[in-house]
Amino acid sequence: MSDTQADAGSGGGIDVDFGEDGLVPAVAQDADTGEVLMLAYVNREALEHTRETGRAHYYSRSREELWEKGATSGHTQMVEEVRVDCDADALLYLVDQTGGACHTGHRSCFHRTVDGDEVGERVFDPDAVYG
Amino acid sequence: MSDTQADAGSGGGIDVDFGEDGLVPAVAQDADTGEVLMLAYVNREALEHTRETGRAHYYSRSREELWEKGATSGHTQMVEEVRVDCDADALLYLVDQTGGACHTGHRSCFHRTVDGDEVGERVFDPDAVYG
Repeated sequence: MSDTQADAGSGGGIDVDFGEDGLVPAVAQDADTGEVLMLAYVNREALEHTRETGRAHYYSRSREELWEKGATSGHTQMVEEVRVDCDADALLYLVDQTGGACHTGHRSCFHRTVDGDEVGERVFDPDAVYG
Repeated sequence: MSDTQADAGSGGGIDVDFGEDGLVPAVAQDADTGEVLMLAYVNREALEHTRETGRAHYYSRSREELWEKGATSGHTQMVEEVRVDCDADALLYLVDQTGGACHTGHRSCFHRTVDGDEVGERVFDPDAVYG
C-alpha cells in the first residue's frame, strides 16, 4: 500500500491527516438520535474499508489489527456518512447501530459521568454475547 | 501538582486514564441539539479547570499549553456534564456553545464530509472575530 497523500481520499475529497502514528480518533454517533456511542481509532486502511463496505471499521491499538465493529458481537455499525473536522485529523461516523456499541452491554460507551454516576442505557447482556 | 491516581477524580468518581502522553481525546457535544461540535485533547489540569469553573478547557498540542475554549473568540462552552467512556480514556463534554465551535466560523468543526461536501452551518465571520 502506498503512503502518498494522494491515496487518502480514495476517490477524491479530503486528505485525512493520519499523523505520525498513522491514526486519527473517530467518534461514532447514532445517525437518528444523535447519541455519541463511542470513540476509537482509525488508520488509512480502516477508513478505506469503512468507505468501501459501509460498515464501521477501526484499528485496535491493543490487538494491533484492523477491527470491524460487531464482527464478534454482531453489533455492527452501518455508516451513513463520514465527516472530517477542520484540521482533517479527526473523524465523525454517523451510524445505524445494531444493539449496543459498548462491550459492557450499554448502548453508548459514555454511560458514566466523571463523578461515577450511571447515566447510560443497558441494552444487552455482555455474558450472553461474548461469554 | 501530584501525579497520583488518587487526584484524578478531584472529589471522587472515575480515575481517568491519561496514558503515556498525559492526554485523552475529548468530544464536545451540544447539550441541547446533540450536534458533535469538536474534538480536542485534555490533560489532567484541563479536566480539573473544566470541573472547577464549568467552562470547557483543553490542552493545545500545537501551543503546548492549557487552553480555555473561547478565551480569544468569546465562543465559550459552558459544560453541563462530563462523561467518561468504558475504558476511561476518552471524555464527552456536554456543552452550551456560544457562537460557533470552529475557528472557520462554523457551528461545528465537523462541517465537511470526507468526500469534501459542505454540510455544516456557518454562524460567524472568522475575520471579524480573530482578524
